Amino acid sequence: MPNPTAAMLVIGDEILSGRTRDANMYYLAGELSKHGIDLKEVRVVSDDAPAIETAVKALSDGFDHVFTSGGIGPTHDDITADCIARAFGAAIDVRADARALLEAHYAKTGLELNAARLRMARIPDGATLIDNPVSTAPGFTLGNVHVMAGVPSVFQAMVASILPTLTGGQPLLSQTLRIDRGEGDIAATLTQLAEDFPDLTIGCYPFQINGAFGANVVVRGTDGVRIDAAVTRLARETAQ
Amino acid sequence: MPNPTAAMLVIGDEILSGRTRDANMYYLAGELSKHGIDLKEVRVVSDDAPAIETAVKALSDGFDHVFTSGGIGPTHDDITADCIARAFGAAIDVRADARALLEAHYAKTGLELNAARLRMARIPDGATLIDNPVSTAPGFTLGNVHVMAGVPSVFQAMVASILPTLTGGQPLLSQTLRIDRGEGDIAATLTQLAEDFPDLTIGCYPFQINGAFGANVVVRGTDGVRIDAAVTRLARETAQ
Repeated sequence: MPNPTAAMLVIGDEILSGRTRDANMYYLAGELSKHGIDLKEVRVVSDDAPAIETAVKALSDGFDHVFTSGGIGPTHDDITADCIARAFGAAIDVRADARALLEAHYAKTGLELNAARLRMARIPDGATLIDNPVSTAPGFTLGNVHVMAGVPSVFQAMVASILPTLTGGQPLLSQTLRIDRGEGDIAATLTQLAEDFPDLTIGCYPFQINGAFGANVVVRGTDGVRIDAAVTRLARETAQ
Repeated sequence: MPNPTAAMLVIGDEILSGRTRDANMYYLAGELSKHGIDLKEVRVVSDDAPAIETAVKALSDGFDHVFTSGGIGPTHDDITADCIARAFGAAIDVRADARALLEAHYAKTGLELNAARLRMARIPDGATLIDNPVSTAPGFTLGNVHVMAGVPSVFQAMVASILPTLTGGQPLLSQTLRIDRGEGDIAATLTQLAEDFPDLTIGCYPFQINGAFGANVVVRGTDGVRIDAAVTRLARETAQ
């Protein structure tokens, strides 16, 4: 059975304006690989309702899972929950279970659960909450869309909450061989290798260090024995 | 006149598998902001022909400019140029101008211009070459799509080659105010500010350092005087 597929939707003006370097994509990609879910596409859109709704619909239709990050806090630019609800035609309002979590949290910290903070308890009908051990305000899963915070520490904690509940497949394994020759010198060898190992993905990533050319060749797949065989042959055929 | 819009298409299995952290998105976002081109969407897809063709068509139709990175080297996994050609219905073959660049380069380095390296001279009919001062093999512009390398040093050099040739708009300016209060405490103030300055974008990015909550509020727009006014008011209204 092939691995489940996934897409990620990063919601954030700060990424598109160049202010912030996204960290969540890299983290999620690594975790999904280990869990045997194949990340097939990532989209980054701004804090703009039509852009979010269009993207979430397209990705929800195209992949087994969609993971979103960003836009679920208490401020005016946090519009993700409402957009997801609209994309699924679900009603959304402050929900008792999410409200109870926030009430307990703010009672402990002594901060006021004001109207802004209560917005974080707006959860679409039919959604399941995603635990947030870092700052309490929950994420949620609606249909095949998992809605999580953009702050990296919270995003990572939510991924840790949700991932064990999802059926994974075979972890994606990889080996990297560094070859100190120009890409163009080893291209024919790689082409033949890719033909002989159609079950593996063979990527070539060139580098240049102090004027010397080289490439990291990455062999990926789910069968470790086949990866070993391919890398061994590659090392033999590209030895100088 | 509104600023031109742009999308970016990152092509690379290595990003989606979690092996590599993308660097080109962050770089391009910053450069486009300075040049007055509004980056509206980024997509990351794997080295898969249908995925690349579908994405490039959608983005080319939806935005003024599309910038791609990755997949234009000499190896079997470098399929970007052919995919772009197919997306535009353009013929593609080794082109004399690109071949001449590579011939001169490899004559100087003493390396052989073999069949693999010659693939880097495959340029769609009607495309304009993009200069590559780092490693010679050119990128190209076809229609509104600018096709560039994935290696960050080469990508950055190509962006520097192409950007001055594109009509920009008003640079996106921004100011950041750090406020050492929880997001939920300042949310109402931010909502009112966003209403009173509809020409500006106001983003709130929370952080937690040593148990203390705070937020960086970023005010973005093209009019520096308006940004000053908004940030001054924000500082006054959130002072404790």
